[in-house]
Amino acid sequence: MKPGEFGWDARFVHVRARSLELAAPLSAEDCGAQSMPDASPIKWHLAHTTWFFETFILERFEPAFRPFHPLFRTLFNSYYNGVGERHPRPRRGLLTRPALDEVLAYRADVDERMELLLAARGTEPELARLVTLGLQHEQQHQELMLTDVKHLLSCNPLAPAYNGAPLPRWPQAEPVRWIACAGGVCAIGHAGDGFCFDNELPRHRQFVEPFALASRLVTNGEYLAFIDAGGYDDARLWLAEGWDLVRAEGWRQPLYWRRSEDGGWHEFTLHGLQPLDLERPAVHLSLFEAEAYAQWAGARLPTEAEWEHAASSIKADQMHGAAWQWTSSSYGPYPGFVPAEGTIGEYNGKFMVNQYVLRGSSCATPPGHARDSYRNFFPAHARWQFSGIRLARHGA
Amino acid sequence: MKPGEFGWDARFVHVRARSLELAAPLSAEDCGAQSMPDASPIKWHLAHTTWFFETFILERFEPAFRPFHPLFRTLFNSYYNGVGERHPRPRRGLLTRPALDEVLAYRADVDERMELLLAARGTEPELARLVTLGLQHEQQHQELMLTDVKHLLSCNPLAPAYNGAPLPRWPQAEPVRWIACAGGVCAIGHAGDGFCFDNELPRHRQFVEPFALASRLVTNGEYLAFIDAGGYDDARLWLAEGWDLVRAEGWRQPLYWRRSEDGGWHEFTLHGLQPLDLERPAVHLSLFEAEAYAQWAGARLPTEAEWEHAASSIKADQMHGAAWQWTSSSYGPYPGFVPAEGTIGEYNGKFMVNQYVLRGSSCATPPGHARDSYRNFFPAHARWQFSGIRLARHGA
Amino acid sequence: MKPGEFGWDARFVHVRARSLELAAPLSAEDCGAQSMPDASPIKWHLAHTTWFFETFILERFEPAFRPFHPLFRTLFNSYYNGVGERHPRPRRGLLTRPALDEVLAYRADVDERMELLLAARGTEPELARLVTLGLQHEQQHQELMLTDVKHLLSCNPLAPAYNGAPLPRWPQAEPVRWIACAGGVCAIGHAGDGFCFDNELPRHRQFVEPFALASRLVTNGEYLAFIDAGGYDDARLWLAEGWDLVRAEGWRQPLYWRRSEDGGWHEFTLHGLQPLDLERPAVHLSLFEAEAYAQWAGARLPTEAEWEHAASSIKADQMHGAAWQWTSSSYGPYPGFVPAEGTIGEYNGKFMVNQYVLRGSSCATPPGHARDSYRNFFPAHARWQFSGIRLARHGA
Amino acid sequence: MKPGEFGWDARFVHVRARSLELAAPLSAEDCGAQSMPDASPIKWHLAHTTWFFETFILERFEPAFRPFHPLFRTLFNSYYNGVGERHPRPRRGLLTRPALDEVLAYRADVDERMELLLAARGTEPELARLVTLGLQHEQQHQELMLTDVKHLLSCNPLAPAYNGAPLPRWPQAEPVRWIACAGGVCAIGHAGDGFCFDNELPRHRQFVEPFALASRLVTNGEYLAFIDAGGYDDARLWLAEGWDLVRAEGWRQPLYWRRSEDGGWHEFTLHGLQPLDLERPAVHLSLFEAEAYAQWAGARLPTEAEWEHAASSIKADQMHGAAWQWTSSSYGPYPGFVPAEGTIGEYNGKFMVNQYVLRGSSCATPPGHARDSYRNFFPAHARWQFSGIRLARHGA
Repeated sequence: MKPGEFGWDARFVHVRARSLELAAPLSAEDCGAQSMPDASPIKWHLAHTTWFFETFILERFEPAFRPFHPLFRTLFNSYYNGVGERHPRPRRGLLTRPALDEVLAYRADVDERMELLLAARGTEPELARLVTLGLQHEQQHQELMLTDVKHLLSCNPLAPAYNGAPLPRWPQAEPVRWIACAGGVCAIGHAGDGFCFDNELPRHRQFVEPFALASRLVTNGEYLAFIDAGGYDDARLWLAEGWDLVRAEGWRQPLYWRRSEDGGWHEFTLHGLQPLDLERPAVHLSLFEAEAYAQWAGARLPTEAEWEHAASSIKADQMHGAAWQWTSSSYGPYPGFVPAEGTIGEYNGKFMVNQYVLRGSSCATPPGHARDSYRNFFPAHARWQFSGIRLARHGA
Repeated sequence: MKPGEFGWDARFVHVRARSLELAAPLSAEDCGAQSMPDASPIKWHLAHTTWFFETFILERFEPAFRPFHPLFRTLFNSYYNGVGERHPRPRRGLLTRPALDEVLAYRADVDERMELLLAARGTEPELARLVTLGLQHEQQHQELMLTDVKHLLSCNPLAPAYNGAPLPRWPQAEPVRWIACAGGVCAIGHAGDGFCFDNELPRHRQFVEPFALASRLVTNGEYLAFIDAGGYDDARLWLAEGWDLVRAEGWRQPLYWRRSEDGGWHEFTLHGLQPLDLERPAVHLSLFEAEAYAQWAGARLPTEAEWEHAASSIKADQMHGAAWQWTSSSYGPYPGFVPAEGTIGEYNGKFMVNQYVLRGSSCATPPGHARDSYRNFFPAHARWQFSGIRLARHGA
Repeated sequence: MKPGEFGWDARFVHVRARSLELAAPLSAEDCGAQSMPDASPIKWHLAHTTWFFETFILERFEPAFRPFHPLFRTLFNSYYNGVGERHPRPRRGLLTRPALDEVLAYRADVDERMELLLAARGTEPELARLVTLGLQHEQQHQELMLTDVKHLLSCNPLAPAYNGAPLPRWPQAEPVRWIACAGGVCAIGHAGDGFCFDNELPRHRQFVEPFALASRLVTNGEYLAFIDAGGYDDARLWLAEGWDLVRAEGWRQPLYWRRSEDGGWHEFTLHGLQPLDLERPAVHLSLFEAEAYAQWAGARLPTEAEWEHAASSIKADQMHGAAWQWTSSSYGPYPGFVPAEGTIGEYNGKFMVNQYVLRGSSCATPPGHARDSYRNFFPAHARWQFSGIRLARHGA
Repeated sequence: MKPGEFGWDARFVHVRARSLELAAPLSAEDCGAQSMPDASPIKWHLAHTTWFFETFILERFEPAFRPFHPLFRTLFNSYYNGVGERHPRPRRGLLTRPALDEVLAYRADVDERMELLLAARGTEPELARLVTLGLQHEQQHQELMLTDVKHLLSCNPLAPAYNGAPLPRWPQAEPVRWIACAGGVCAIGHAGDGFCFDNELPRHRQFVEPFALASRLVTNGEYLAFIDAGGYDDARLWLAEGWDLVRAEGWRQPLYWRRSEDGGWHEFTLHGLQPLDLERPAVHLSLFEAEAYAQWAGARLPTEAEWEHAASSIKADQMHGAAWQWTSSSYGPYPGFVPAEGTIGEYNGKFMVNQYVLRGSSCATPPGHARDSYRNFFPAHARWQFSGIRLARHGA
């Protein structure tokens, strides 16, 4: 997005409004609770994304800047050591004050000041760069709002629906085709002038051996066959650390599948508890489950270079929108990676260990936020994201 | 309280209304959060006390009983195995549904049905017995509502006040006198027709050696002297398990004391952060701290028999209303103790291990709820109750 | 034991030699391992009991005292804060140096110096008092050596026997009789001139209501009936904390019982794995299991005052030698309790919280070490001691 | 190594004897203890390497095979699910039986049978393949024996030396040179007929951007400068997970460095406690520390492809023998990786997650065991291996 393209105001207002729309079906109580340390309350997401604009933009660009509330700097800092102290992550759910209404007032105040600033100086490149980053950051949190609230509601025996409308139908899955990729030296990483995160740069070369990629993601029906074949009972299919987790946590199915007493399957969704739809991509899977499934299916996961190559060069099917797709690549810096300068450079680099890259995007990703070069990342055990399985094979 | 004394309705309505008054200063967000597994959300207290009437009274006495909501039986069961499944205690804060409004509707519905039942059959002894138990139970939770919300608010860096009014002044503490008690065979346990919990019975004999009891509780000023003398650094003063805790948890002062950078002391209270009042009884102390203080002061804690003997026979000073007073007695059954019949008999007996008795009552105890024979109990490490120190000495 | 009675040397030599006899069936490897933080390696017991004589006697009474090894003061200090630093308890099994041979040399050296000292000054009362304490202390560790090595060997799939001889037969259990005790004011605590630990004093009065005591301990056969009746599945029988433990740890039987695939029962003993002897007292039970059994049997555990009263006044059957007997009394100070002066006073008092008293003595208690007033104590969950169940009932 | 090259017997006998030589300075007590779950007792290493020959070779090739002891199959299985049950890893230190002598007898028995088998059928390729694998496996454990016993002895306040001889001098470190590598498509992975592990195959192509590699490892002196500059206090230098660990574990220096009260530094070594040698490569560092140092030094760690390219094509300095060198590459399968067939295929593949590759070899690596294509791997937090830092830079 370039400044002036269709006006900062429109873009800024649109993204900021979207966060409020996502929170609209929820009560203040829903917005305040934190279901696990990995997740955050909706209220915290609303405040933290606002804090980002206040701290990294208004504080720098606004003459006579005064913080909306002096303690918000601590309360809504996620992980920026450079900004100072932080409220401990597992205790975000205890912040019943500020109330949701106050957080909404905080948003309104910062938005108003941001819009004034954009009207006055929106064409300055450094400001434009930071606003774009702030909006992309907010979009990332919009997806987390959905995954976090889904997890929260799933913990409630009442199985409440976030969205009361019927779950839209999903088309029947076509048989899998294997799309051949010849391999060779590929260009990987973001190209062009558009926005990207620092971890997508620099564009560089990687050698990819010939491989084939499945034309679509693994479906619930296919994953159910893995379960019925004893997939969760066969140590040989699993990475050792995954197998330990299967036994310690008692994993028997994807995170939100529920088995009724008659043996039938349901899935908890944002539309409440639903009969399991066998055609839909299997989601809420850890990397360990994805690897075990691939092993069972006689295939493997793609590397992130293979995925990006297939997406950008071959235009393979169903790359975006269905679910994030685990790759076998650990999350690390590209050759020549340079973090952004200053505190904002803490954004990505410091998480480059013990996490794995997911590519594509999910049904929860905001429109316009997805890119072929986008690198999402989570620990191998994480299951509360919309994460699914794309298979690959060696040789074309 | 006897049925008919001044009308069931008045008493029932009064106690039930008090719970709502206690919740009145709080938002729905405040009422939903749980600050630690030992504490419960206010909303849960409001629902659980209602569940008690619904489950143990309406279900038994109401013709054509139908539960307000079938899942509430599970959600708001505290620990009664006999009633069936329970929602896990540490996850009570995740129940953003039912909303506070629905819980209030649940209360209103049960109250209305209870009042009809009382009007019709309030003179039946068994019903009267259970209603009285339910009201006493609710009063216990009223104190917990205050201690739990205090803990929650204390976790918030904004240090919000539950009560916006100024903290009432506390009179100057008089010098301690030692009240001599001759000892001998004493009658211990509840006497008379009034209500008591099963753990206060049967009344029985205990032999008490001559002892002396301090005329009042230890003040903040006295406890500060213990801190200033290095009390938290001297292993010899502490029970071994207490000393391990002091080091593991980094205890340096009572739970809610805060030291400012200039060395001054404040205390977080229900009225917000306040300068430490040296005349007030020291509260929010564990048994370990009480024992260490007593050791340092060349005294000891009383046993519960000594305490009750002093309160009932000698009418010693300041026995109720200032703070719960740790005794050195572990919580166990009196000789001949018989739990109540049926599920309701899970009330007290099954906690009779690894807990210590506190006697008296605190500033948060509802009026009329205190008794000399009352046995409160908490684990030795618990600090979030209004628990203080009364000293005793051997020999009269 | 009084100095001069039959000569210090004989007594000292006898007790010290007994520790070596207990270690004799074990290899250096057996003596070095630590199976859990609660247990200690045999080598550590041998060294620590020696350290006690060196630190509390030789250092004080020996002219020109020089420690055998300067670091042993730290390595073999159990819990005396007054002596200085300690090696962390859970890491005692890592002390492969000093080797067992060096520890035996340490014992020989200290014994030789002790014997010289006793020959010269053995009639001095203070020395006599400390030597007696040291020998009683060593006898306590002799029992721990057996329980700790039993636990260690039980962790080995080879189920090795500590003692290769056949397990001696146990006589058939007689039917239980209920021994009536009239109650009243009793004198409790050690009487007379003989040795006792500080926690047995002062002798004082307690009022005991009329009660009846079972004539013998619960047998394996009786405990098996509790298991077969679903005792480990019925929450109503258990203290709440015990029930949590049953589920968290998967307790289904006493610590050393093993069920074979055909449903038969064996018990791991110091003589290796043996068919379960139904006549023998059930041992290696936690207080929680003892309480649940008593609840199931329609009885209760005795208090320690009841037990001592029955043992000393009524001369009830089978009070010593079969197994330690859980009481319902938490371990606390007697009225007027005064710990011994100086560092040695850390001996007992600082453990007087969250532990329960066991009375009597077991098959592993050294001859001559048992007393009616003896107060053994362990946490309610401890199972690796020879701890069994004596029932009591209210009313005579 | 090819069969017949210089006789199986010589090679087999040599490697097997080396394990005994490594255990020779240790007592049976030293050999039995386990200092942490990640480490194993020396006795266990001696038995497990023997178990490997017995289970994967004798059981298959020996006519009328009978196990040396039926339970050893369970006791000395490390992680092969295909073989059956395993003794829990953290409890290996409790296996005081079989005694060290019995394990030595086990070794002698298996060695004798292996030598007979080799004499009869040593030229059969499948047998040759498995024996070679068994010997390579044993050499891996030989290095672990040294790192595990070093860790054990480091836990002992007596700081005992494994090797009583003086620590050999280390030459003065030369100034670092930056060796330029032009980059391009490189062949990575094992080439030729010699032995390699499955994880070194298949040889494949990777594109490497131009880079420069430091001519030697970081020295103790250089690492000390990082400490003195506040490296352990500056969050900005650390990966987020590393920083959490620094604070939770209180890391202030490499694992075996000890600061004396006068501020001087010593290092615990296999030769006991020694003054810190500033010229020696810094070792016993986690990946987190290696990354933080690199960040501080304005450099980065090499990828494993860069390392292998530099070692094999450019013949860079000090690649082997000083210390294992952390790379920034997570441990994963090469494109086209196929695990060995059958149970033995559990060897490497199932650990390919959340571990990082170390390249080169250390002072503890058996002679002849190192290869440029060798892939060692440990979790990012592991510190007890001889792991050090080699720096790299982007651009040539």
